[in-house]
Amino acid sequence: MSQPQSAAAANSAFLDYLSVRRRTAELAAPLCVEDQVIQSMSDASPTKWHLAHTTWFFERFILADHAPGYVPVNEHYFYLFNSYYNTVGPMHTRPHRGLLSRPTVAEINEYRALIDERMLDWLDATTLSDSQQFLLTLGLNHEQQHQELILTDIKHALAQNPMLPAYTQLSVPASLSTPMNCISVAERECANGFEGEGFAFDNETPRHKVQVYAHKLADRLVNNGEYLDFIKDGGYATSELWLSEAWSVLQERGWQRPIYWQDDLASEYTLSGRRALDMNAPVCHLSLYEADAFARWAGARLPTETELECAAAEVAVEGNFYESGALHPVAPEQANGALRQLFGDVWEWTGSSYGPYPGFKPLAGSLGEYNGKFMCSQHVLRGGSCVSPQSHLRATYRNFFYPDSRWQFTGVRLASDA
Amino acid sequence: MSQPQSAAAANSAFLDYLSVRRRTAELAAPLCVEDQVIQSMSDASPTKWHLAHTTWFFERFILADHAPGYVPVNEHYFYLFNSYYNTVGPMHTRPHRGLLSRPTVAEINEYRALIDERMLDWLDATTLSDSQQFLLTLGLNHEQQHQELILTDIKHALAQNPMLPAYTQLSVPASLSTPMNCISVAERECANGFEGEGFAFDNETPRHKVQVYAHKLADRLVNNGEYLDFIKDGGYATSELWLSEAWSVLQERGWQRPIYWQDDLASEYTLSGRRALDMNAPVCHLSLYEADAFARWAGARLPTETELECAAAEVAVEGNFYESGALHPVAPEQANGALRQLFGDVWEWTGSSYGPYPGFKPLAGSLGEYNGKFMCSQHVLRGGSCVSPQSHLRATYRNFFYPDSRWQFTGVRLASDA
Amino acid sequence: MSQPQSAAAANSAFLDYLSVRRRTAELAAPLCVEDQVIQSMSDASPTKWHLAHTTWFFERFILADHAPGYVPVNEHYFYLFNSYYNTVGPMHTRPHRGLLSRPTVAEINEYRALIDERMLDWLDATTLSDSQQFLLTLGLNHEQQHQELILTDIKHALAQNPMLPAYTQLSVPASLSTPMNCISVAERECANGFEGEGFAFDNETPRHKVQVYAHKLADRLVNNGEYLDFIKDGGYATSELWLSEAWSVLQERGWQRPIYWQDDLASEYTLSGRRALDMNAPVCHLSLYEADAFARWAGARLPTETELECAAAEVAVEGNFYESGALHPVAPEQANGALRQLFGDVWEWTGSSYGPYPGFKPLAGSLGEYNGKFMCSQHVLRGGSCVSPQSHLRATYRNFFYPDSRWQFTGVRLASDA
Amino acid sequence: MSQPQSAAAANSAFLDYLSVRRRTAELAAPLCVEDQVIQSMSDASPTKWHLAHTTWFFERFILADHAPGYVPVNEHYFYLFNSYYNTVGPMHTRPHRGLLSRPTVAEINEYRALIDERMLDWLDATTLSDSQQFLLTLGLNHEQQHQELILTDIKHALAQNPMLPAYTQLSVPASLSTPMNCISVAERECANGFEGEGFAFDNETPRHKVQVYAHKLADRLVNNGEYLDFIKDGGYATSELWLSEAWSVLQERGWQRPIYWQDDLASEYTLSGRRALDMNAPVCHLSLYEADAFARWAGARLPTETELECAAAEVAVEGNFYESGALHPVAPEQANGALRQLFGDVWEWTGSSYGPYPGFKPLAGSLGEYNGKFMCSQHVLRGGSCVSPQSHLRATYRNFFYPDSRWQFTGVRLASDA
Repeated sequence: MSQPQSAAAANSAFLDYLSVRRRTAELAAPLCVEDQVIQSMSDASPTKWHLAHTTWFFERFILADHAPGYVPVNEHYFYLFNSYYNTVGPMHTRPHRGLLSRPTVAEINEYRALIDERMLDWLDATTLSDSQQFLLTLGLNHEQQHQELILTDIKHALAQNPMLPAYTQLSVPASLSTPMNCISVAERECANGFEGEGFAFDNETPRHKVQVYAHKLADRLVNNGEYLDFIKDGGYATSELWLSEAWSVLQERGWQRPIYWQDDLASEYTLSGRRALDMNAPVCHLSLYEADAFARWAGARLPTETELECAAAEVAVEGNFYESGALHPVAPEQANGALRQLFGDVWEWTGSSYGPYPGFKPLAGSLGEYNGKFMCSQHVLRGGSCVSPQSHLRATYRNFFYPDSRWQFTGVRLASDA
Repeated sequence: MSQPQSAAAANSAFLDYLSVRRRTAELAAPLCVEDQVIQSMSDASPTKWHLAHTTWFFERFILADHAPGYVPVNEHYFYLFNSYYNTVGPMHTRPHRGLLSRPTVAEINEYRALIDERMLDWLDATTLSDSQQFLLTLGLNHEQQHQELILTDIKHALAQNPMLPAYTQLSVPASLSTPMNCISVAERECANGFEGEGFAFDNETPRHKVQVYAHKLADRLVNNGEYLDFIKDGGYATSELWLSEAWSVLQERGWQRPIYWQDDLASEYTLSGRRALDMNAPVCHLSLYEADAFARWAGARLPTETELECAAAEVAVEGNFYESGALHPVAPEQANGALRQLFGDVWEWTGSSYGPYPGFKPLAGSLGEYNGKFMCSQHVLRGGSCVSPQSHLRATYRNFFYPDSRWQFTGVRLASDA
Repeated sequence: MSQPQSAAAANSAFLDYLSVRRRTAELAAPLCVEDQVIQSMSDASPTKWHLAHTTWFFERFILADHAPGYVPVNEHYFYLFNSYYNTVGPMHTRPHRGLLSRPTVAEINEYRALIDERMLDWLDATTLSDSQQFLLTLGLNHEQQHQELILTDIKHALAQNPMLPAYTQLSVPASLSTPMNCISVAERECANGFEGEGFAFDNETPRHKVQVYAHKLADRLVNNGEYLDFIKDGGYATSELWLSEAWSVLQERGWQRPIYWQDDLASEYTLSGRRALDMNAPVCHLSLYEADAFARWAGARLPTETELECAAAEVAVEGNFYESGALHPVAPEQANGALRQLFGDVWEWTGSSYGPYPGFKPLAGSLGEYNGKFMCSQHVLRGGSCVSPQSHLRATYRNFFYPDSRWQFTGVRLASDA
Repeated sequence: MSQPQSAAAANSAFLDYLSVRRRTAELAAPLCVEDQVIQSMSDASPTKWHLAHTTWFFERFILADHAPGYVPVNEHYFYLFNSYYNTVGPMHTRPHRGLLSRPTVAEINEYRALIDERMLDWLDATTLSDSQQFLLTLGLNHEQQHQELILTDIKHALAQNPMLPAYTQLSVPASLSTPMNCISVAERECANGFEGEGFAFDNETPRHKVQVYAHKLADRLVNNGEYLDFIKDGGYATSELWLSEAWSVLQERGWQRPIYWQDDLASEYTLSGRRALDMNAPVCHLSLYEADAFARWAGARLPTETELECAAAEVAVEGNFYESGALHPVAPEQANGALRQLFGDVWEWTGSSYGPYPGFKPLAGSLGEYNGKFMCSQHVLRGGSCVSPQSHLRATYRNFFYPDSRWQFTGVRLASDA
């Protein structure tokens, strides 16, 4: 299966690798050592763990298997930095990642440097087979996912501190109000899923026929002002707006507003610290439960992933991503008759649970654990966020989280039956 | 909207009502008073609670709203026997149903008799409107659902007792081995969901076009012998067979076999007490997690609800139901080229999460809480079981439970991509 | 070691046995079958479990060991009705006692009748040795302890029911206000612990010298009126009044008043149902935490067990016990210069943790598990309550519970340093 | 009450202050920044929290109240570094101390330097009143307590890391076997508690008469070899050796050996990393439950605090303390007819629960929260440990922990009744 690669391809692999790896380091740069150690909940991981785990991925799945006579940097790291790949060995338990003071941040940065050196040596010495090229690309996409998690996890961690420290100080863009319009979509047959050139995760395949029923989609995301209306209308106290399990969670955890909103209902914690809520900007950090309750209150529903993919397939992957530097969702441009904000700003909750596409086959071997084993009890989100790398996204991309998750940059677009 | 009903219709309403209500009493008859009080877990309810709650349903949704000048039997009952209808008032918490010694079983039976009398009086005095007829039918279908729960809940409760007492003593049918064959189904467009005459729940509507992809379906359910092979092959110790959250649940709860199997792997607790496992009978009381892991081990997958509904739509609703008297799944008849056991024996787990059909609208008012608010994190099951009333089922019927639920009569049929 | 017993002694054993056993049955008489099944928390047991366990005690420790060729009534009972005697075999777990519908109440009453018959036969046939006589007396004292628990446990269970059903209907005595006076006690050497004729538990021995420091004791128990003042003064919201762990428990469980007080602060749940608080009657069902906080608020402290035993040793064992029929604490008689209410009404929390007396030796064998293994983290209570059998008590008697326990009839007498 | 202090006294206050504060910094010196952030359990705190909290104590209780016009360094610190003094304001919750990345270690060290400067200025400018001198001494004793906690907490934290990193590398002393002898003590009256010149905590007062009963005391601590015999004899599997609540804890948490013993039963985690067990050295890191079970297995019991104080009062405060540099208990010298190891090595569990002495009065004001509010459910330990500062201890010193605590340097000396 191995085919000779051109010098250009080799060069591109080098550049891609360096580019992704450098950005990860760039993300950690504003943080002090202490910030990189803490873990605020089981779902999140310390920054230094992300730095190490993404490195482990290359060491474990590429170097250990594909570099002749490879000797691991540190046997302990195979245990400490395995996330959930049962088939490659036992692992340190997730909720205890914040208890590891060693290896230190400096040691992990040395580990990164060492693996980078070895990877570049290996890339230099190897004519990549298709499957090796795939592993490399997978490793880089994997690291891009963790780039987003570094930001969502540190935001959650810093928000636990009563001093509400900022990750970094960013300027606040001005914003304008713009109405929400509904765009009608006629019933039609369509296809979903990835096919063709380029990289995609296994969970995006195979491409298959889907039925789109007649429906309407809001042309922009729900904003903070609208969500504030929901709160002021007693949204969090009205049981009939909520799914049964949502209502239980609400009672148990005492939810009364989005996770980073402050109790004045006028400001929120952001990666730049506490800031006034921009009423025109998309509401952010909603659980599926909140997104769904808001939609019901608004007389609407969540879109399905089919509806969103069919819409997204027709536009370019452009929007407010990590590269824009805002690190926060921003108000949309004025209405233009088309769907706005389909990519970037916030991941859009869908009413679709995360499951296999018809004919889905997970990757062979250990990497089959990457996506397939999570196909239960989670919901699909679409479109990427203001902390997603732009090059990581595409119309067929499926993100997924549990319905009670609130620490990702997640929001809501309204849909309704025609 | 109200239309005059014929004498025949009135008579039929009487008979239906009496027939369903009598069966509930019949189900409780083998139980001593003590059995009817206990609650073995939050998911289950005491028998006497079921007896009262089904009665409350008629009192609260029919008599209180439709019988002129109605005076409730006991105001406390409105609180104690409301299950989860937030919109009609507060309710006693579910996990504490087993702490209620009062009203006593005798008092609850008096409550049943009194409401029956009032319902029959009301039926006698009333020309039912369509919506009243619907409420009546809904109440009877609701009670049929609880008939099944009375049996699944008491089975779970009695199984907690080290003496393993029987609900009742039933004879054991002989059984024969029969191979599992695969039936190929070609890709086609089909329709799912209920439409037309007769009763259906709101979650079965609207009828809508679906795409069936080419696949294969096993012509019978997986049996105990096959499941034993899975166990002996280390199924419960092989992480790669399990969904990620399934593997966590397995570790936490120490699962090593189906819930009622005894540790000799040769016998199981049944409603007739401890009995030898019939290796030809369908394996029963699996969680979705176990059904899914078994399917993966067998190189197959769970069917989708679409696949099962399209198959079920072509056969009669016949099988091993409550009326057969076995109260346990039995071995299928010999292969005949068609799908066997599509109805009865055990509810078949599907790979489909429980969600709204395109264009779904819940019932108006409080009864909208019946189904829609559970459309999250659960999976659909199809076909009914050996403790379901036959008249309660149809091809479009959607049952749903959480993926870790094991106390229902639930099993698995294999499917695979073509 | 065995010594011949007189006919009178034999006769007395008969009568004692019958008398205690009959009272237990008498206590269960007002309860319906359903009441006898439920268990409202891990610390409490169902009535029918108490009926069976006290019977098991005679079967297991007397008949099985001392009746030649004894054949157990039912092997399962040895497992189901063992409470905590690890050395005589495994046992059913305490929190699951409420899940046992079988054996039924009727079957347990048959078990009681059968063991009574066998015990009387054995008493008839046996010249009791000293140790056998001790076992018999221990069994009867054990059953008396469970008589009190039957009432405290069923009170807790019935109180969970929103209908607040009564155990039985009793008349309410009139009451008069009487001031609380302080009695000064000079420093002196004294002796504590049991010695001499008659029965005592091992934890009351050996008798040993103790130092009593100069102190004052209130001449009566704290009453509801005084406790209401504490509540109205913000007692439950003032952290400095509470022990550190008490304050944590308060926050976690949301305590705001004694367990059976209703939220009007004017009525309480009693064994006769909901009744107006008698402001002159002793406050009841306090945890040690509440008793201690109240004392601190009042500028006082809890008495030590030494102080209470030295005081109690000088008075007769008289007071409001089970035999008075009130089943609730009552207001004291007028002050008379002596300590009032030293016995009966409510168990008095002491500041003394429950530990071994100097030179303490537990009973030999399995019965050594009776008391000694609980000598950690609990506090001593003195004096008996309105649901204690009078003949069960004496000045040296030590009851003990965890500091967060509130379901016993427990109250507080103030003390202070001289 | 204020009295002029001599220049010598002022000088001594300076030196004491500097000496204690410098040692705290010295303790943190071997740790990297990451080590100082983590919190391994609710009972323990991060090093940097200890560094800040001990500083806060001086700022809050001395500077804020006694330095004219004092302006706090940072208002947040009053919230973040208050441990449990409800009366001086709200506080950050203990289990979340490990989530604070800010203030950083460097910022906390700046805080320490700033407060040191202000304290020295204040000392320079102030003629200390008695109560101010007391506050100063209390603050230094408080900091000494936290010096010990810094070591016990970081030991626990580092032990969670599968790499078992060392706090520092120390040499292992050679050891010799020496028999355990029993020393008989006759019954006598004695006095316990502190009186006279010098500092003591409020919980050591008032001095009061106690009765010592005739007993025997082992002349040295139980060692690892003896504890290993207990384990090999099935100690952890023999229910009758354990207190009832101890047995429950054992089952729940799966205890099978002391917390830092490795599963080879031949090595243990120490502050120098993993090392072979010295069979002659005192067994260490026992809970009260384990100490008590061991004593029962050995046919002995735990000493009372009275017995140990009366013994300790007769010897000098000498032993293996922090100053010896071992940071681990060591084998005793050869028997010499007297009690060995009464001070240092390990805190000795007593059978005495921690309560107030007769006539106890807590300090006035907020500092009354220091000791008194913990007088419930804990047990007294005596003698200090290998990580206690020598100058911190005296014969009347009372340490206290919950019976399930295992992360302190705690061990056991046997006693028995005469």
